[in-house]
Amino acid sequence: MTFQQELDRIADLTGHHLGGLLDRHLAGEDPARVGEAMRHALLGGGKRVRPYLVIASAKLFGVAEEDAMPAAAALECLHTYSLVHDDLPAMDDDDLRRGRPTVHVAYDEATAILVGDALLTLAFETLADPNTHPDPAIRASLVLALAKAAGTNGMVGGQALDLAAEGKQLSADEVLKLQAMKTGALFRFACEAGAILGGAGEEQRAALIRYGTDLGQAFQLADDLLDHEGDAEAAGKAVAKDAERGKATLVALLGVDAAKARLETLVADAGEALSPFGDDASNLVEAARFVAGRKT
Amino acid sequence: MTFQQELDRIADLTGHHLGGLLDRHLAGEDPARVGEAMRHALLGGGKRVRPYLVIASAKLFGVAEEDAMPAAAALECLHTYSLVHDDLPAMDDDDLRRGRPTVHVAYDEATAILVGDALLTLAFETLADPNTHPDPAIRASLVLALAKAAGTNGMVGGQALDLAAEGKQLSADEVLKLQAMKTGALFRFACEAGAILGGAGEEQRAALIRYGTDLGQAFQLADDLLDHEGDAEAAGKAVAKDAERGKATLVALLGVDAAKARLETLVADAGEALSPFGDDASNLVEAARFVAGRKT
Repeated sequence: MTFQQELDRIADLTGHHLGGLLDRHLAGEDPARVGEAMRHALLGGGKRVRPYLVIASAKLFGVAEEDAMPAAAALECLHTYSLVHDDLPAMDDDDLRRGRPTVHVAYDEATAILVGDALLTLAFETLADPNTHPDPAIRASLVLALAKAAGTNGMVGGQALDLAAEGKQLSADEVLKLQAMKTGALFRFACEAGAILGGAGEEQRAALIRYGTDLGQAFQLADDLLDHEGDAEAAGKAVAKDAERGKATLVALLGVDAAKARLETLVADAGEALSPFGDDASNLVEAARFVAGRKT
Repeated sequence: MTFQQELDRIADLTGHHLGGLLDRHLAGEDPARVGEAMRHALLGGGKRVRPYLVIASAKLFGVAEEDAMPAAAALECLHTYSLVHDDLPAMDDDDLRRGRPTVHVAYDEATAILVGDALLTLAFETLADPNTHPDPAIRASLVLALAKAAGTNGMVGGQALDLAAEGKQLSADEVLKLQAMKTGALFRFACEAGAILGGAGEEQRAALIRYGTDLGQAFQLADDLLDHEGDAEAAGKAVAKDAERGKATLVALLGVDAAKARLETLVADAGEALSPFGDDASNLVEAARFVAGRKT
């Protein structure tokens, strides 16, 4: 099985699990419109890279796929909330996401705000649910780690920096900091979550966080390269928009060749971080190569 | 000490605690604008009724005020997020809140969306933090209960019903259901949180949930009466807006006299629910009377 096939397999499992989660969660009570819009946002494809990372990281400690899936699904809910809110007219004002209309376009702005709020809340509800793990200490750890990754010192902070940066010239260090918060924090969490679920020791947890940090940077850099070399059809979303908006990217600051060289280094560093796990981590090493080389 | 003085005392303690929470949370890293806007939203007054209920409910089980305060503060963060998002132009489009400009007016819409997202996330971070309670099972229970109260089967669901209802004629039962979700769920959680913090048994927890349910209805009904008899200066926000928007309220559906009679019944029922606690619950009985009789 190639890595792409393995990723697709997990993406299918994740989509199936998320569908069931919404079926249970939305049974009966809710106004149909918000529930429909949650399905639109959550079940509209996506590579499910973050759930893959939760599952593959947890597997290092012998955790079965189905036992890591609830936490993986919670992370995908949280990631999807961030996309829905970032796409809003007051934020990045994007009409297209994963090749389909964004939530505020397909529905309306108020619904998109509520869908984001609901998915963010559902992420924490899922992590705190006894089905996610029998040990409440592990559930509380997952909630705390995800909240830190998602809050003002993580994703929301990165988005705020991004908004503040419009029309300004950032340095490469400033861009790195922004991206480490806006994108990197959830990648770090994905790998940390595997360690938490697996009851890993401090050293193993730190190794996975290091891997997740490098991987997050690699993912963002590959994204910037795609945006730069832009093919909207392949990417399934509007491309070359960063340059249009005057947003600084590492590709613009370093040049394409240096950016590509940096990407190579990040993939090597990510692999190096996993050395304590030996061959058990070959899937994760492969994931770093895949993320760096992706075309969509 | 009168009840108003007691409520003011807890409101001061809560404001002080929230200020410290933001100081620690926003130290260093963040773009100043979102942090400032979080302070504007969270520290701009407010009666702090929900934190009061957490603290007074926990006190029934011998929990010290300072030990209930982190959970009380988390609930106030969550309540404040809901105000910030509900005030947005795409939602209720309100310019005034607690006598001051709303966040999107004082700052901008993107900042208001992020402030809401950040406060929602901070609520869960706070509940999952070991400082909130040494027992992770209690922390996980608090997270789960708050997420259920805040999600599509609680507050977000109620707001969605509210949006769906604009321009429609709701029945009294439909209004009750909407309000039980939109406003009632957090009141219920406030009282349930006291029970969780206090390690209460099922029966005591159920009694507090019943009390919180009645209290939430009473609070909303008093709010509708205030809106109907409207004095913007006293209320510190725009009033008589519900009627203007064609939103159904129980006051419009039942008439003022029947609404006032119902309010009396709710206060009596709330007191009755607390009978298992005897005199220990006199503060909470007083709180129900206060909420029903408030002028702001």
